[in-house]
Amino acid sequence: MPTSRLEAFSDGVLAIIITIMVLELRPPEGPTLEDLGDVSTGFLTYLLSFVYIGIYWNNHHHMFQLVTRVNGAVLWANLDLLFWLSLYPFTTAWMDETGLARTPVIVYGINLFAAGAAYYLLQIAIKRAEGPDGVFRQALGRDLKGKISPPLYLVGILAAAWVSVSLAMVFYAVVAAIWLVPDRRMESFVARHASTV
Amino acid sequence: MPTSRLEAFSDGVLAIIITIMVLELRPPEGPTLEDLGDVSTGFLTYLLSFVYIGIYWNNHHHMFQLVTRVNGAVLWANLDLLFWLSLYPFTTAWMDETGLARTPVIVYGINLFAAGAAYYLLQIAIKRAEGPDGVFRQALGRDLKGKISPPLYLVGILAAAWVSVSLAMVFYAVVAAIWLVPDRRMESFVARHASTV
Amino acid sequence: MPTSRLEAFSDGVLAIIITIMVLELRPPEGPTLEDLGDVSTGFLTYLLSFVYIGIYWNNHHHMFQLVTRVNGAVLWANLDLLFWLSLYPFTTAWMDETGLARTPVIVYGINLFAAGAAYYLLQIAIKRAEGPDGVFRQALGRDLKGKISPPLYLVGILAAAWVSVSLAMVFYAVVAAIWLVPDRRMESFVARHASTV
Amino acid sequence: MPTSRLEAFSDGVLAIIITIMVLELRPPEGPTLEDLGDVSTGFLTYLLSFVYIGIYWNNHHHMFQLVTRVNGAVLWANLDLLFWLSLYPFTTAWMDETGLARTPVIVYGINLFAAGAAYYLLQIAIKRAEGPDGVFRQALGRDLKGKISPPLYLVGILAAAWVSVSLAMVFYAVVAAIWLVPDRRMESFVARHASTV
Repeated sequence: MPTSRLEAFSDGVLAIIITIMVLELRPPEGPTLEDLGDVSTGFLTYLLSFVYIGIYWNNHHHMFQLVTRVNGAVLWANLDLLFWLSLYPFTTAWMDETGLARTPVIVYGINLFAAGAAYYLLQIAIKRAEGPDGVFRQALGRDLKGKISPPLYLVGILAAAWVSVSLAMVFYAVVAAIWLVPDRRMESFVARHASTV
Repeated sequence: MPTSRLEAFSDGVLAIIITIMVLELRPPEGPTLEDLGDVSTGFLTYLLSFVYIGIYWNNHHHMFQLVTRVNGAVLWANLDLLFWLSLYPFTTAWMDETGLARTPVIVYGINLFAAGAAYYLLQIAIKRAEGPDGVFRQALGRDLKGKISPPLYLVGILAAAWVSVSLAMVFYAVVAAIWLVPDRRMESFVARHASTV
Repeated sequence: MPTSRLEAFSDGVLAIIITIMVLELRPPEGPTLEDLGDVSTGFLTYLLSFVYIGIYWNNHHHMFQLVTRVNGAVLWANLDLLFWLSLYPFTTAWMDETGLARTPVIVYGINLFAAGAAYYLLQIAIKRAEGPDGVFRQALGRDLKGKISPPLYLVGILAAAWVSVSLAMVFYAVVAAIWLVPDRRMESFVARHASTV
Repeated sequence: MPTSRLEAFSDGVLAIIITIMVLELRPPEGPTLEDLGDVSTGFLTYLLSFVYIGIYWNNHHHMFQLVTRVNGAVLWANLDLLFWLSLYPFTTAWMDETGLARTPVIVYGINLFAAGAAYYLLQIAIKRAEGPDGVFRQALGRDLKGKISPPLYLVGILAAAWVSVSLAMVFYAVVAAIWLVPDRRMESFVARHASTV
């Protein structure tokens, strides 16, 4: 089964998630700069979630460059990832409307963690669909970022629970920053692979 | 007429339906876990409808792997399916906002049934467009799942009307579980067909 | 300039319009069948607008089967069409929320008329981009449906203004019914054209 | 890395932005023409933002006709552009709900300016990805429109701050009008380039 429709559907869902979040951004109550300031938390959490969805789209894009065929397990692992990502507007809005209260910030962190875990399961499903000699397995390499993200999310969640929500937000932002550097493994692998073929 | 634009349009509509439902998920009123608990019904109904749309997308994807050309009747049968699926956010939200009241649960079941019937009509339209020797007809085979789903929906609807809404929800979830197993008929047929060509 | 991205973008916008309208369908206030009955006007106007968008997508699909290249004028004529179609959720919601009051029904008719006119302009832009020998011009033929729709919309608008809104809705539905028959001209032309090439 | 998925994702996001704005257009409160008149500001600002998104889509479309491969920097520059464009529904709604108050009109202008700057950065990223001999660099030429738009936005912002919001809206509309003429540079370059190859 080729990957084109899976990619198109994922692009569609991610495009909608990324833009649906702006619908949760209510326009300020009044016409002044202070009114705009009142919604600045919403703006920053929107920005963070936008960057996260952008990262997932970007990595999804890089990953499926190397995938040539998918099976039912990959389709469902992909839908699982999309499910957790589709909850970002919901958890982002809750966090925002409560002014970054403790529980919503923890729940947001759990959502980030669950999406990260779903991405990890998707990688495993692709590796299995490919068999032991697949190029994806080689291109993935050590997957350092993929391995340090879940502990960082957990530290953020614990920070929200016992220290402060601000510290938690810092950890969540740090993970995003780590991923903002594009996935050069894939890119360089594609380049090398293309040149040897 | 090739199938690419029909697939792209269907992907678009399904991607939007699946993500629009999360818009109906209102963030909890307050910042506590109890507040989150108050919206858990909404979360579970969202999950069920998400899985249903995912199943339709998945089977639609498998089905159109085997379809090479469409006519006007197939286009309209497809739009009929999309119409019923587009009502899922509406019926899901009604069921959720009334805390799973009897009538909304029945109406949700009717919506599931109507979408199933529309999918069945779409299969018939494709078979007719293909003629008696089409590969789709062979790949479809006995279509066991397609045949037992409508009775199960009906049993769920009757259960909601005369027994309890919880039992109805169990039946609705069982149909989803049956379909969660990917459609191996199509997959294996594609594999066999590809290897003989 | 090839037509693929124009088609993809139009598919995206039409897919969103068709599903956004369901967001305007508010779930009934209470859990009974009477509550559902209270929103039945909304359901019927949603159905009508869904069918209209489906018709435009269908004809757009057929039309661009025959178009091989586009220029800036076609891009803008297409955006003009999408603009008027994007107002359907707005005018449909107004008509619905006022219980089919006179002015909203007239404005809805004007919206239908404007979209029809935009489609007509798009056809002209395509014919100009193609030059006098284009296949599109031949396939279009007499364009009977395209010619009788605007007068029927106007009659509907006048009926709303001076007779009754119900009569107007009948005219609007009749135009939809006329178009529901797929555009066999294009289909048969594609078939003939394909067989001669 | 080919450009197809970047184009598809951008099309998806732009299609959603352009149609999401209509969701902010609340139907009039009552059924009369006066009620419709009350929302005419919203209609006009919707029209302006629709035209702006249409322009960006159009130019994006033309630009990527000439781009054959992208790297991570281009992907992120593109996401940056989409981020600013995704705020249009938000700033448009604020401007509209406050009846074109001074601060919202300034913020809308800043949003227009930021999107214009993001588009400029995207052009630079593409040029760098291409190397000194790329066709895109040649096709872009002097980029007169790209150079005069930012000063015009700034003049509009200053006009809103010190003169009148109406004058600011005129400047914003003038920039849109300048861009409404399709980007003939690219179109003619594609034509010439295609004929020499």
